[in-house]
Amino acid sequence: MKRIGVADTTFARVDMASAALLALRGAGTGFRVYRRTVPGIKDLAVACRQLFQEDSVDLCLVLGMPGPAELDKNSAFIASLGLQFASVLEGKPIVECFVHEGEARDARELDHLARRRAEEHALNAYHLLFRPQELARHAGEGLRQGFADAGPVRPRR
Amino acid sequence: MKRIGVADTTFARVDMASAALLALRGAGTGFRVYRRTVPGIKDLAVACRQLFQEDSVDLCLVLGMPGPAELDKNSAFIASLGLQFASVLEGKPIVECFVHEGEARDARELDHLARRRAEEHALNAYHLLFRPQELARHAGEGLRQGFADAGPVRPRR
Amino acid sequence: MKRIGVADTTFARVDMASAALLALRGAGTGFRVYRRTVPGIKDLAVACRQLFQEDSVDLCLVLGMPGPAELDKNSAFIASLGLQFASVLEGKPIVECFVHEGEARDARELDHLARRRAEEHALNAYHLLFRPQELARHAGEGLRQGFADAGPVRPRR
Amino acid sequence: MKRIGVADTTFARVDMASAALLALRGAGTGFRVYRRTVPGIKDLAVACRQLFQEDSVDLCLVLGMPGPAELDKNSAFIASLGLQFASVLEGKPIVECFVHEGEARDARELDHLARRRAEEHALNAYHLLFRPQELARHAGEGLRQGFADAGPVRPRR
Amino acid sequence: MKRIGVADTTFARVDMASAALLALRGAGTGFRVYRRTVPGIKDLAVACRQLFQEDSVDLCLVLGMPGPAELDKNSAFIASLGLQFASVLEGKPIVECFVHEGEARDARELDHLARRRAEEHALNAYHLLFRPQELARHAGEGLRQGFADAGPVRPRR
Repeated sequence: MKRIGVADTTFARVDMASAALLALRGAGTGFRVYRRTVPGIKDLAVACRQLFQEDSVDLCLVLGMPGPAELDKNSAFIASLGLQFASVLEGKPIVECFVHEGEARDARELDHLARRRAEEHALNAYHLLFRPQELARHAGEGLRQGFADAGPVRPRR
Repeated sequence: MKRIGVADTTFARVDMASAALLALRGAGTGFRVYRRTVPGIKDLAVACRQLFQEDSVDLCLVLGMPGPAELDKNSAFIASLGLQFASVLEGKPIVECFVHEGEARDARELDHLARRRAEEHALNAYHLLFRPQELARHAGEGLRQGFADAGPVRPRR
Repeated sequence: MKRIGVADTTFARVDMASAALLALRGAGTGFRVYRRTVPGIKDLAVACRQLFQEDSVDLCLVLGMPGPAELDKNSAFIASLGLQFASVLEGKPIVECFVHEGEARDARELDHLARRRAEEHALNAYHLLFRPQELARHAGEGLRQGFADAGPVRPRR
Repeated sequence: MKRIGVADTTFARVDMASAALLALRGAGTGFRVYRRTVPGIKDLAVACRQLFQEDSVDLCLVLGMPGPAELDKNSAFIASLGLQFASVLEGKPIVECFVHEGEARDARELDHLARRRAEEHALNAYHLLFRPQELARHAGEGLRQGFADAGPVRPRR
Repeated sequence: MKRIGVADTTFARVDMASAALLALRGAGTGFRVYRRTVPGIKDLAVACRQLFQEDSVDLCLVLGMPGPAELDKNSAFIASLGLQFASVLEGKPIVECFVHEGEARDARELDHLARRRAEEHALNAYHLLFRPQELARHAGEGLRQGFADAGPVRPRR
């Protein structure tokens, strides 16, 4: 039985974790979920650290939605660096799923994008733990999460 | 009995710690506060490290007010990265409550914003330690500290 | 028998790892390859950490292709810092081979650039492990990977 | 007997350490100073690390003067991050006193600013070690070093 | 007998290491040099880590020449942060000697600047190890490497 940590925020404007949990459960079995909700994205790195240390999870999926202001972009940058640090220190994957408000044109698209990206990163998390060959099979194929795949520059030979 | 560290600065132009302490004490009991005041925001990360190591606090709340100049913004960025590093290294939360001078239009608003954000982050700190389910209940709801909540993109289903 | 880790992404739009593996195998023998494919470039640092810790590789070659948007540039920056951290922590080289979409004028050039850079960095990785004197011989000669060498500012005396 | 480390550079254009040492000695007794001079600000973090590890100092005061060019600003940023890292790792304060050339209008003002800021940060260092209550007493009062204090946004109640 | 590590790159367009080695040898005796050449500046931090760990050097001198493009500037930033991390972690100095292509107006000046800066930083490295009082004697005197010294803002009193 593997353990998956899920960390999200009260700052985000979409309940990405629910979408992610549904996708995880649809992907397969053999894991238990540990969840922590923190105020903002800068609190995610230590939440992961605690999920690794206190709950012994094998991987974390983090969900966040930085706001549109300059300060928010800085926060996203800082949060991501914290996640790198936590992940490397633990030697365990942290799948970062951030949706920036500016990526969508309106509320409807933002909602859709956030849920869809959360689902697709949940699947990435599942594959990292249970089916790494699924990822290897799509190496270099321009996959995206939330938006349509960019696709490979040239068709596979 | 839990221990909460509070670190603030002489640089800030509002006594955010007093507002935070009142809010903490209004939130509940079962904790003791350890406080350190340092010159500026770049001194906060090591103050937290000392609160964790010397005073065995379970969580730190840090309060800072970067100035409006470009150099101040850099300082805030650097300070935040130091806080990420300290927090992940310790595996204990550091709730960062920064108010940038430029976020408010005048002195009155800055004063109000700073106190209110300090109070609301004090509550976040309290919830992280004592009532994590309060945070989980509001996951993805677009909560803000100091300003009005942004709210969820779409009403909860 | 040395061990070389190769980490790449499903985000990249060219299968750089195949080009790298061919080049590695053309360069010589005496090594075994361990490969991991992750979703995006921010997942590469921990993939290396795991290759070092779980597969005992002596060096990692990482292949990534950041997109053209501002957010993608930030991701590349963050990913590179994560790689620095992992590499220094382990005391083992991580050869970073990133191709930014904006470096090429069209799909054909991007494809060519990505494969060629992957090959040339694969050779760098091979030299670091097996023939460091090859690198020393070209110190300060303005070598490039993917594009033509810049060459030395002044001809060697 | 406490130990204070002082690290400065040959790059700076004002002998800030002399001003700092005078201020330290004027502030009180009960400490011994250990000093290291390095070429530039990026050498300060490891100088502190050595002061902590080899000379067992309890706190470091670092003095630097980044130049006016873009590259110099980057260097200051990098140096500050190194100082965060060293300080948190050791769990001991590093009081950073940087004066950017662009902060002053002319040579006279730069000289004055650098000496004055060095003195005031020396006092901060002294207070951190010997009289933390002095800092606590001025929490949130908008203190500055080198320039006039900004003061609190609103008078204390 | 002290040990000095020298790390340089094949990316640089001037053979800065040769200039540095000549300067080191002209400065005095009592040391042995360990050299590693890596592909680019982002490989320097781990090269230093290996020089410290595998060759037990007491100090590293790193020589690099970032290109003129935006991506190159980012690489320099990342490389410098890696060097900070390695240096602080080891508690041993890494003297960073980078020359940015844009610092010189033409090939001749770039060549001259790179060699001269390498020589002057080699001397700094030598002083750090053998004659720290030489550095202390010039504290705050506005020394530069490669270009003419900026000099002190005001003549020494």
